[in-house]
Amino acid sequence: MSALRIALLGYGTVGNGVYKTIQTHQEKLKRILGNDVKIVAILVKNIEKHLAPDSDVLLTDDFKEIITLDKLDVVIDAIVGKEPSFSYLQQAINKGCHVITANKEMFAHHGAELKQLAKEQGVTLGFEATVAGGIPIIQNLRQLLNVNNIQKVQGILNGTSNFILTKMREDGCSFETALKVAQENGYAEADPTNDIEGYDAFYKAMILSELAFGEKPDWEESIRIGIKPITPEQIKLFTSFGYRFKHIASIEKTAAGIIFSVKPVLVNETHPFYQIEGVQNAVSIDGDIVGNISLQGPGAGMFPTASAIIEDLVYINKYSFSPTFLDEQNGLGLKLSSTYWAIGGDMVSENLPPHIKIIDRLHPNVLLVEASEEDIYSIQSPDIYCYQVLGKVLIEEAALVD
Amino acid sequence: MSALRIALLGYGTVGNGVYKTIQTHQEKLKRILGNDVKIVAILVKNIEKHLAPDSDVLLTDDFKEIITLDKLDVVIDAIVGKEPSFSYLQQAINKGCHVITANKEMFAHHGAELKQLAKEQGVTLGFEATVAGGIPIIQNLRQLLNVNNIQKVQGILNGTSNFILTKMREDGCSFETALKVAQENGYAEADPTNDIEGYDAFYKAMILSELAFGEKPDWEESIRIGIKPITPEQIKLFTSFGYRFKHIASIEKTAAGIIFSVKPVLVNETHPFYQIEGVQNAVSIDGDIVGNISLQGPGAGMFPTASAIIEDLVYINKYSFSPTFLDEQNGLGLKLSSTYWAIGGDMVSENLPPHIKIIDRLHPNVLLVEASEEDIYSIQSPDIYCYQVLGKVLIEEAALVD
Ligand SMILES: NC(=O)c1ccc[n+]([C@@H]2O[C@H](COP(=O)([O-])OP(=O)(O)OC[C@H]3O[C@@H](n4cnc5c(N)ncnc54)[C@H](OP(=O)(O)O)[C@@H]3O)[C@@H](O)[C@H]2O)c1
Ligand SMILES: NC(=O)c1ccc[n+]([C@@H]2O[C@H](COP(=O)([O-])OP(=O)(O)OC[C@H]3O[C@@H](n4cnc5c(N)ncnc54)[C@H](OP(=O)(O)O)[C@@H]3O)[C@@H](O)[C@H]2O)c1
Repeated sequence: MSALRIALLGYGTVGNGVYKTIQTHQEKLKRILGNDVKIVAILVKNIEKHLAPDSDVLLTDDFKEIITLDKLDVVIDAIVGKEPSFSYLQQAINKGCHVITANKEMFAHHGAELKQLAKEQGVTLGFEATVAGGIPIIQNLRQLLNVNNIQKVQGILNGTSNFILTKMREDGCSFETALKVAQENGYAEADPTNDIEGYDAFYKAMILSELAFGEKPDWEESIRIGIKPITPEQIKLFTSFGYRFKHIASIEKTAAGIIFSVKPVLVNETHPFYQIEGVQNAVSIDGDIVGNISLQGPGAGMFPTASAIIEDLVYINKYSFSPTFLDEQNGLGLKLSSTYWAIGGDMVSENLPPHIKIIDRLHPNVLLVEASEEDIYSIQSPDIYCYQVLGKVLIEEAALVD
Repeated sequence: MSALRIALLGYGTVGNGVYKTIQTHQEKLKRILGNDVKIVAILVKNIEKHLAPDSDVLLTDDFKEIITLDKLDVVIDAIVGKEPSFSYLQQAINKGCHVITANKEMFAHHGAELKQLAKEQGVTLGFEATVAGGIPIIQNLRQLLNVNNIQKVQGILNGTSNFILTKMREDGCSFETALKVAQENGYAEADPTNDIEGYDAFYKAMILSELAFGEKPDWEESIRIGIKPITPEQIKLFTSFGYRFKHIASIEKTAAGIIFSVKPVLVNETHPFYQIEGVQNAVSIDGDIVGNISLQGPGAGMFPTASAIIEDLVYINKYSFSPTFLDEQNGLGLKLSSTYWAIGGDMVSENLPPHIKIIDRLHPNVLLVEASEEDIYSIQSPDIYCYQVLGKVLIEEAALVD
């Protein structure tokens, strides 16, 4: 059989990593795929900035030149933004190409449509690289779903904000200083909005929700809070109680629907995310048979992301997309778990509505309470802050007070 | 097509979990496998102890009755010991059955032979449950190997010994007391030798070595040290320096061959294993492209282990066993990494041979040194103890002293 012919959309950090990895892994890929693997075309936006890496690679800024190629087996998407990525992948699938994408913003919006189209056309759609970079979370979730009903997925899905929180705690510095360090280290973009406002983690969590539960929560009503509200004083205070701030995406299947949030949370030493520092990512999965499994690793970067894309490439034709979710919910995980919160600022306990149950006073100005997410948001005001609290010891302690 | 017919060897903890999970997941399995799944026969040793779970299930203590069944698609091995497990699986493969095993002792000894035989007969051989119970480590390693050369695998692979170490630290109790608690909780057998002497972790590490590197180190020359030598006083002392004892299996590919050890190690807060407590297991993998990935979860138990076995069942016929290792080592990971050790007891630094480099004095009687594993074992005596030390901050500090 002739070589597997690939077009690469985008030649930035990820595109470069994919090109290099395919070049250096020719032998290995050939052995696994039974075929030579060849990148035949690369799409960029500003063609004057680029040189084709090889004379027989078509470098173009015109997608038409790519989609009209005579023989094309796979299209790998490493560009940014919903469009034109979505339209390009639709065209590629309709032409009968397998597609692989790293583009989380596009996939969070249009994943379901692309999955449907790929199924109709009988091609493979890989999206391992859209969530948590080099951590093989998509593959693991899919595999666990064969046996388990998934109850909850939680993750530190954005390395930039985790780096900033780690830096603020370690150096006692302000958000602005930590952001500057992140930018100097190449961990944050010139415009860091996507990362620090939680959009990036939000997109990834939407992709996980669709995979784990077969559906996404209401996009508009879903909680997305970034890390900007966190002050160095709060970090110092909670560090003294044994807590660290982590920016956590949480998706839980309950009888009341999917509970979804992306927000800063306090975790203590007993929680698997306590120790996830710097640009690391982590994901924790609760399945009804297997219990809790967590994975941690590099959430971004040229080669970890390329590794995820090449894994998808290896699985072309090997796995199919049977949706195995939903239809067998067995009652487990269907009740709302109680949630604990630290409330701080200018307030006294007498002001709290009765459905917010006080568990402990951590500090003259900080209460530990038990309440639902809605109740907490109902009392929010500029004078107070509320952070959810995770970790085992605390909940046991709380149960004692209870 | 007619139902997928399965024989289950062993009806203890694991066998029971598999039976129950298959019964409760009929619908899901049918959807995935396109087939009803039916356990048609169960093998036990003491037949008088058991009742067939259903009137149409053959319960027997005679393997001949099973292997001569007219139609048999899959044999699942959940018995103990090298024999008769190995012979039974050979017979099953030769009959054309797919086989799945949870039996690590047998698989550590005979895995390579069974893989070869399964390849010749064109059947699938699953062994996810042999290592780290519910953590899908076999599948993740295999998947990572498609793209990465694996450089190092480390793991906390025995829940019993990790439970004992955690208990000793938390309660300040002796090894004997902690072992008794483990036995009372069903975490340790009446004869705990396999767990506390490190045999169980040793078998699992051998299985991982063969998968990640295509070979096992010399069985006789490989280091296997259990947790019995650790005293409550040592635990107290190292806790005060910020270290915890963990029983770690480590397999590393170097130019000098595979460096293999199963032994108690000291880890500080920066190491992903610091926080793995109680019966939890964890595995950390270093790949040349992806970097470091770690997984943690339940290392044993009825349902986590059943989950791993059913995952293998789902993948019958779906994946093949192309050995992708070895032939493409690219220089990375081929040099020996330096190792740090805490040496304590009745000794003074003047007594140490010159190739053991002193980095720091942690305590009047405890030195932090840099040395090779051989050098360390060359100085061992009843009066001193040596534990390897892992974790980032320490090594950076050490580098400063350097
Ligand atoms: N960086 C990571 O670690 C990482 C990890 C996981 C997923 N991702 C996702 O992977 C994608 C690529 O990320 P990246 O970091 O490689 O971005 P990048 O470095 O900014 O590169 C983007 C590339 O896409 C090209 N491009 C952008 N818009 C285009 C358009 N309309 N038409 C044609 N080409 C276009 C750019 O062309 P020019 O070079 O000509 O401007 C550039 O080569 C993004 O969707 C990102 O979210 C990134
Ligand atoms: N327990 C775990 O969490 C776990 C996790 C991963 C892997 N594993 C592995 O899975 C296997 C089973 O473990 P387990 O905990 O289920 O052990 P178990 O509770 O002791 O059960 C063993 C079963 O095997 C049967 N058996 C033993 N020797 C036999 C023989 N020669 N012929 C026929 N049947 C025989 C026993 O029969 P009787 O009942 O009649 O005595 C019993 O039903 C072991 O290899 C273990 O290492 C266990």
